[in-house]
Amino acid sequence: MTNYQPKDSSKSPRFCGIRTFMRLEQIKTTDHVDFVVVGVPFDTAASNRTGQRYAPQHIRNFSVLLRPYNPDMDINVFDYCSGVDYGDIDVIPGNIHRTYDNIVAELTPILDKGIVPIIIGGDHSISLGNLRAFHKKYGAVSLVHFDSHSDTWNDYYGERYMHGTPFRRAVEEGLIDPRHSIQIGLRGPLYSAQDYEDARELGFEVVPMKEVRKIGFDQVMKRIHERVENRPVFVSYDIDFVDPAYAPGTGTPEVGGPTSFEALEYVRGLDGLNIVGFDLVEVLPTYDANEITAVLASSVIYEMITLTALKKRRELQQKAEVLNQQQ
Amino acid sequence: MTNYQPKDSSKSPRFCGIRTFMRLEQIKTTDHVDFVVVGVPFDTAASNRTGQRYAPQHIRNFSVLLRPYNPDMDINVFDYCSGVDYGDIDVIPGNIHRTYDNIVAELTPILDKGIVPIIIGGDHSISLGNLRAFHKKYGAVSLVHFDSHSDTWNDYYGERYMHGTPFRRAVEEGLIDPRHSIQIGLRGPLYSAQDYEDARELGFEVVPMKEVRKIGFDQVMKRIHERVENRPVFVSYDIDFVDPAYAPGTGTPEVGGPTSFEALEYVRGLDGLNIVGFDLVEVLPTYDANEITAVLASSVIYEMITLTALKKRRELQQKAEVLNQQQ
Amino acid sequence: MTNYQPKDSSKSPRFCGIRTFMRLEQIKTTDHVDFVVVGVPFDTAASNRTGQRYAPQHIRNFSVLLRPYNPDMDINVFDYCSGVDYGDIDVIPGNIHRTYDNIVAELTPILDKGIVPIIIGGDHSISLGNLRAFHKKYGAVSLVHFDSHSDTWNDYYGERYMHGTPFRRAVEEGLIDPRHSIQIGLRGPLYSAQDYEDARELGFEVVPMKEVRKIGFDQVMKRIHERVENRPVFVSYDIDFVDPAYAPGTGTPEVGGPTSFEALEYVRGLDGLNIVGFDLVEVLPTYDANEITAVLASSVIYEMITLTALKKRRELQQKAEVLNQQQ
Amino acid sequence: MTNYQPKDSSKSPRFCGIRTFMRLEQIKTTDHVDFVVVGVPFDTAASNRTGQRYAPQHIRNFSVLLRPYNPDMDINVFDYCSGVDYGDIDVIPGNIHRTYDNIVAELTPILDKGIVPIIIGGDHSISLGNLRAFHKKYGAVSLVHFDSHSDTWNDYYGERYMHGTPFRRAVEEGLIDPRHSIQIGLRGPLYSAQDYEDARELGFEVVPMKEVRKIGFDQVMKRIHERVENRPVFVSYDIDFVDPAYAPGTGTPEVGGPTSFEALEYVRGLDGLNIVGFDLVEVLPTYDANEITAVLASSVIYEMITLTALKKRRELQQKAEVLNQQQ
Amino acid sequence: MTNYQPKDSSKSPRFCGIRTFMRLEQIKTTDHVDFVVVGVPFDTAASNRTGQRYAPQHIRNFSVLLRPYNPDMDINVFDYCSGVDYGDIDVIPGNIHRTYDNIVAELTPILDKGIVPIIIGGDHSISLGNLRAFHKKYGAVSLVHFDSHSDTWNDYYGERYMHGTPFRRAVEEGLIDPRHSIQIGLRGPLYSAQDYEDARELGFEVVPMKEVRKIGFDQVMKRIHERVENRPVFVSYDIDFVDPAYAPGTGTPEVGGPTSFEALEYVRGLDGLNIVGFDLVEVLPTYDANEITAVLASSVIYEMITLTALKKRRELQQKAEVLNQQQ
Amino acid sequence: MTNYQPKDSSKSPRFCGIRTFMRLEQIKTTDHVDFVVVGVPFDTAASNRTGQRYAPQHIRNFSVLLRPYNPDMDINVFDYCSGVDYGDIDVIPGNIHRTYDNIVAELTPILDKGIVPIIIGGDHSISLGNLRAFHKKYGAVSLVHFDSHSDTWNDYYGERYMHGTPFRRAVEEGLIDPRHSIQIGLRGPLYSAQDYEDARELGFEVVPMKEVRKIGFDQVMKRIHERVENRPVFVSYDIDFVDPAYAPGTGTPEVGGPTSFEALEYVRGLDGLNIVGFDLVEVLPTYDANEITAVLASSVIYEMITLTALKKRRELQQKAEVLNQQQ
Repeated sequence: MTNYQPKDSSKSPRFCGIRTFMRLEQIKTTDHVDFVVVGVPFDTAASNRTGQRYAPQHIRNFSVLLRPYNPDMDINVFDYCSGVDYGDIDVIPGNIHRTYDNIVAELTPILDKGIVPIIIGGDHSISLGNLRAFHKKYGAVSLVHFDSHSDTWNDYYGERYMHGTPFRRAVEEGLIDPRHSIQIGLRGPLYSAQDYEDARELGFEVVPMKEVRKIGFDQVMKRIHERVENRPVFVSYDIDFVDPAYAPGTGTPEVGGPTSFEALEYVRGLDGLNIVGFDLVEVLPTYDANEITAVLASSVIYEMITLTALKKRRELQQKAEVLNQQQ
Repeated sequence: MTNYQPKDSSKSPRFCGIRTFMRLEQIKTTDHVDFVVVGVPFDTAASNRTGQRYAPQHIRNFSVLLRPYNPDMDINVFDYCSGVDYGDIDVIPGNIHRTYDNIVAELTPILDKGIVPIIIGGDHSISLGNLRAFHKKYGAVSLVHFDSHSDTWNDYYGERYMHGTPFRRAVEEGLIDPRHSIQIGLRGPLYSAQDYEDARELGFEVVPMKEVRKIGFDQVMKRIHERVENRPVFVSYDIDFVDPAYAPGTGTPEVGGPTSFEALEYVRGLDGLNIVGFDLVEVLPTYDANEITAVLASSVIYEMITLTALKKRRELQQKAEVLNQQQ
Repeated sequence: MTNYQPKDSSKSPRFCGIRTFMRLEQIKTTDHVDFVVVGVPFDTAASNRTGQRYAPQHIRNFSVLLRPYNPDMDINVFDYCSGVDYGDIDVIPGNIHRTYDNIVAELTPILDKGIVPIIIGGDHSISLGNLRAFHKKYGAVSLVHFDSHSDTWNDYYGERYMHGTPFRRAVEEGLIDPRHSIQIGLRGPLYSAQDYEDARELGFEVVPMKEVRKIGFDQVMKRIHERVENRPVFVSYDIDFVDPAYAPGTGTPEVGGPTSFEALEYVRGLDGLNIVGFDLVEVLPTYDANEITAVLASSVIYEMITLTALKKRRELQQKAEVLNQQQ
Repeated sequence: MTNYQPKDSSKSPRFCGIRTFMRLEQIKTTDHVDFVVVGVPFDTAASNRTGQRYAPQHIRNFSVLLRPYNPDMDINVFDYCSGVDYGDIDVIPGNIHRTYDNIVAELTPILDKGIVPIIIGGDHSISLGNLRAFHKKYGAVSLVHFDSHSDTWNDYYGERYMHGTPFRRAVEEGLIDPRHSIQIGLRGPLYSAQDYEDARELGFEVVPMKEVRKIGFDQVMKRIHERVENRPVFVSYDIDFVDPAYAPGTGTPEVGGPTSFEALEYVRGLDGLNIVGFDLVEVLPTYDANEITAVLASSVIYEMITLTALKKRRELQQKAEVLNQQQ
Repeated sequence: MTNYQPKDSSKSPRFCGIRTFMRLEQIKTTDHVDFVVVGVPFDTAASNRTGQRYAPQHIRNFSVLLRPYNPDMDINVFDYCSGVDYGDIDVIPGNIHRTYDNIVAELTPILDKGIVPIIIGGDHSISLGNLRAFHKKYGAVSLVHFDSHSDTWNDYYGERYMHGTPFRRAVEEGLIDPRHSIQIGLRGPLYSAQDYEDARELGFEVVPMKEVRKIGFDQVMKRIHERVENRPVFVSYDIDFVDPAYAPGTGTPEVGGPTSFEALEYVRGLDGLNIVGFDLVEVLPTYDANEITAVLASSVIYEMITLTALKKRRELQQKAEVLNQQQ
Repeated sequence: MTNYQPKDSSKSPRFCGIRTFMRLEQIKTTDHVDFVVVGVPFDTAASNRTGQRYAPQHIRNFSVLLRPYNPDMDINVFDYCSGVDYGDIDVIPGNIHRTYDNIVAELTPILDKGIVPIIIGGDHSISLGNLRAFHKKYGAVSLVHFDSHSDTWNDYYGERYMHGTPFRRAVEEGLIDPRHSIQIGLRGPLYSAQDYEDARELGFEVVPMKEVRKIGFDQVMKRIHERVENRPVFVSYDIDFVDPAYAPGTGTPEVGGPTSFEALEYVRGLDGLNIVGFDLVEVLPTYDANEITAVLASSVIYEMITLTALKKRRELQQKAEVLNQQQ
């Protein structure tokens, strides 16, 4: 059986070769893989700075530094799972609807095989395309959403498909079940006092950063787990969730966010959930002069891969236990 | 009579105050003005790098250095004309058709008063919107087009309104008269040998950079004047016409282009034509680390303003002569 | 009655138009306004890096992202106050005394109308000019001063008007009442052990960063409020108060400072004071590659505007109560 | 028969997908290919700035802009040849001798099949490894060397294998035939008057930039062709041959060099020679803020590919003529 | 007696003059000095990004901001010690063994006089050279090692002298006594679960970042002091110990590290140890756009100088006490 | 006899050691030297961008690349002259008059010994200080002035000592003899048609860039030599003389200037004049992202040193001839 894993950087220098995520093989396959990393370089729907189309490559460039063993979660990722860099989905700059169609078309065969896609945006509008594909496989999924913005506005200048509207559209289209969905980290000036209420009226649980600071990490994670339960869940991680000091390369930065350590802890804390897919969006290379946003984004994706490996290990252990009990 | 002119930088330091083009007043008026500088920060139609939406402000930031007397053309610009910074036209990111509608709606009252608009893009797709507005006033205009690309492709990934297609669309819509239009400076790898021929088959005279180098500046200018004659002409200047050493801040740079000196000479050489409007497009601030593209773009626009002043002076002289002869 | 407020970014994209602070109208008026944002681009008095003259425009460029409702303080700012971007005061580079005269001349009509000026520097020397103007209106004011330096040195190389001396001069000139003034956040290597004592001998209460960490945020705020009481107070905020990771764009950075969250909390904590004016100084755009200093500075100013709105709301409520009681 | 060619950028946006040179397939094959692009990211031997290890990826990142038809040479490259991105050769940072061994081992099977390798450095020391491999296949080759330095010094601080010594070593090892080799473009301050003489004494024809300017382009090309005749020739192109305004991203820049137009013309002028391989070295991404060095380097490599296609076309035409004559 | 101290920046502006560390005299002397700052600009052994050769100058450039009195430790450094900028040790790029020889040769006369060298790298491989020199003077020293990596790997691609291997080599060569040595701050993905165990098996006490967060600063310092006791100790500080938000300019950044405040506290907490030398390594200027890594590195070195002054003061006090008791 | 010359970069890597100009010794001596390189980091008088205070160090940083033999002029510079890096003159930021006093005080002993100072600015205002010192030694000198601006304005905002006024002041103070002085390269928009005339009325010969292009290099040099004759001449070189593509790092860039090759040729062409001193001003590091302005400025200064060596050689040859004839 093929087990795809990264090139060994103690054998070949990490700065050698075509940049794929974590030096995984670049191959468009759904055979023998547990996860795929796939880019969606779409940035037409950004309302402020643009250029997120270069994020997948920017993150890949740095990700060659990653190594297979995660000491924080005590697991060698590739002992339990196999993965590839699936390349990018062809987007249509300027045409969000054709782009959504491509996303759905490309993700469907991946999801059909039960593979976990880890999707690199692109601006946050791509999540609507992602969720359409997940809905086809899993029905209305739960959403765990890390962001400094709710992204449930109705429209911008009359346009309904923008990077600030995907989750309102997703609720309207029945793609997510808001009663089991939760948004964490919201902060910064708003258009009106109503903005957070709008998200709540759509059905979301909303934990603004102000509340995160008050109740603390453990309570936040408890609320996430209680909200989601054991449903299939999609995790959407907007890099502007993190403070601009740690993630300057983004389009609508908001000060007062988590540190890089916290940024990873929130992902690690999701262990145990039934996560069927992830996206990491809104990285903007042109505001990442020292590449630390790429460092952080790589690390966040690495924790997403780790979650996939941990889930795989749990499944193997459960099977082993069942087998054991049968004997 | 009001005569709008820049703030005097020997009285008030040029780094003081809100950045408007050349320190002109920022006022949306069509009264008592001969030209307006107006931005169209649209970049949805870029096929490679994006971020041209920040070009108008980037160019304004540097333009405060400009002074009123042009020694190369021997004219104090504001002795003969009055102008304002008209601000930006509200674009709709992601929606080119609504953006075109806004461009037409905003330019129409300016053109109706016979004012010369100097339009700062944005990507090159905006020229189609500009030409629609000019057509309403002047019918099919002549086009003088400086660029390293022909921008007469039919479509990209099935999309017909992109920054590489405006002049094919303009011919199809009857907005320009290709028999009196000319493209200068084309170079760089192409999709096929047919690319230049396509432009010629549309009716354009095409002078690739290779030919520019062979025949020289004087011949190029002669061919422009012969082609255009005394028709109303629109000048479209893509900053990638210039060599990347002089204009690095652009989305699809092509090496082997003119110097900054030549870049201005081609504008100065247009003196005598009946120019009714200009655009300057494809400046990309995120690739302009030292701001020299802003320096050059400001200078190109300054020469456009100068052409407007020279035309005004000619008209005044003609009137004076007529008056003289009548006496 | 005119109520000046920002352009609506859900109607017009925030990257459209001339950059004014928060997309407020750029108009030099003292009618119908509660606050004005005004730049003082002076940097002659910087002892290390220079270029603070570009700070006002740099901060304006980013500030277009700000929205009117402040969820942390639960107020829609423009429900209670009206404000404009007043432009910049003409400074005289190289001549600090003539610059001071201009500052006083320009601020006086603003202060005479009881308007709260929010002044963007420039280096910290401008505070002396600001305080001279405030003194004319309010007599000796209290000072709340956030900074990593005391700025009470006597001179540099024999020069008495530098960015490290304004508050000694202000005490000498009787512009501030040091017994009701306080300095917070001082840190970093000093010329001698005497440096902090000098500030205390001038009459200031000094809370170095080391003490801030020991006593904690609540105690710091308590001491500020106790020190200032209900006197008219001027708030001077040097961006180097904040840690360089969060505010790299400054001239004399000192590590070990507050985070961006804390940076805002210290402003929010001033609610209730009788603040008559603010300045935000020492932003240096040439060391702000990813623009996060602009993000933070915009947010700090936004909290200053919020304080003004909160004060306005309190006044309205008090009036209403009085009216109520009279009935 | 397989014909490897770039992805079509009018079908899939050029910013989509893993960055390979010119969007060619990344496959390590010697079947059905006429040329391969291969990186050698070695920079241990740089005497001044270092970081050339990132050049192959930096150049690939931009090269996605290239299109298949070369209007200057009137050929659609992929009508006549097939090529792939071969990836990078594993270098051993810090160990030049093991790196040379790897280069030879990797190039040998490519050369054995008569394929033209286009090698992207890395610092100039890699040319010695390249030439060792070529020597195995072709014996002592001719060298056409574009550079602002002769790179025939004996040693630096006692080290004989540095980026300023490869061509002395190559002559000593008998890898090149200096009597049919030529160096073009040398300039800048030297250690002594003897430096150019040293190169001549080794047998090279040396055409310093000063002489290039005197005799002109046509004479330079004439001398190259006369020197090389129809021998197998290796072309080594150091990007610092070009003026720093056009190629800032390099380690030992020397002012007073050719323009980007001339930089390409010197490659185009080699058409007709029996070129068996190329290298393009000394690109340094950390000094290429606006990426124009990547633009130029991509274009130079594109002209190298074009030369390979032109040679292929000549061969086909010759075969056709022979066939014709036989009939 | 000569007492070398920095130029007075209240007399001469800090931006005047050749950049030496902290404006100390640049003189290669071992007379009348208690510490020397010396650069070792070697970067051949970096496995990822390179360019650390420019770190000594980069840090010197900023260090001119430092002032003599340290308020956190309440000491005027130059009241108790004298120091110079010793310049750089001539390294041999590409030849680590000759470089090690030079390091030993240059440090020996400094150590022989009991002077404390503060060494600025360069990549971390230089520590092996440093330790060889210290061993000659002090025998096997204790090591206090702040880093996000253990740097006890055996080899990279078969190379045993790389920046990830110095401390394994040092143990093998008997240069340090691992039973009295400790590593703090390790984190980030590893090659295998064995990596930390390897360091422990070599004899080191290892405190990964995860444990640092659990036990807290005081416990960490307690363990350091207990481990080291009163032995001669060498402090090796890799700047990647600190979080990339605070120290972006480094070659193998790992998120989740200490803040700038903590970064200094760990050095301050070493007061009382018998420190005989320091190095500060892995600063990489090309990823330090806003120079905040230089700010932090300067501050860390300043605390190292302070420790030397504190030790000197203790010695003087002890002598005084002895003298007192004798009377 | 001491002969100061640069460290040998084939022995010690050029990136080692404190950065002095060309790796010359940093020593403030007037003994045994023919030229000194000295910085004047003053930028208070800049009317647009500021930060020229960092130019001397920025240029020194790159200048370590220079080597002693100049092939264009065929001379090993240090065979004929000895020089040192004299460090910087202490300027007083914000106080131009005290700065002028310092300049005069520092240059006087250098000039008294007949040494040629090569002065690195700083903004162009420093030339007035320089000329005051030269006048004390040589009386009214000739001026050869390369610049895109005349710098003979009367004042800015009422300030008479700015970087645009030094040469009017110098004429008024009788420091230069305008009848034997010449300005070359002027271009760009002006305040009025009178600007060049003003310079001519002061007595200068003015050769704007437009005329330079018309008459050509040889004629320009001929006019310089005819104008100056054999008088003592001071050469003032403003880096904005050169096109921004070649010298982006400056405060008031003007497009349409000379190339880097021409930039050097104009200096080389001065050979034969009786040059007693030079300045090179207006380099602005914060706009020199890739450091090519530093490369060019270093090269210009290198040609200035060469001119000094050539003059020295001529003098030696004349002495030898005289001696010969006497025998």
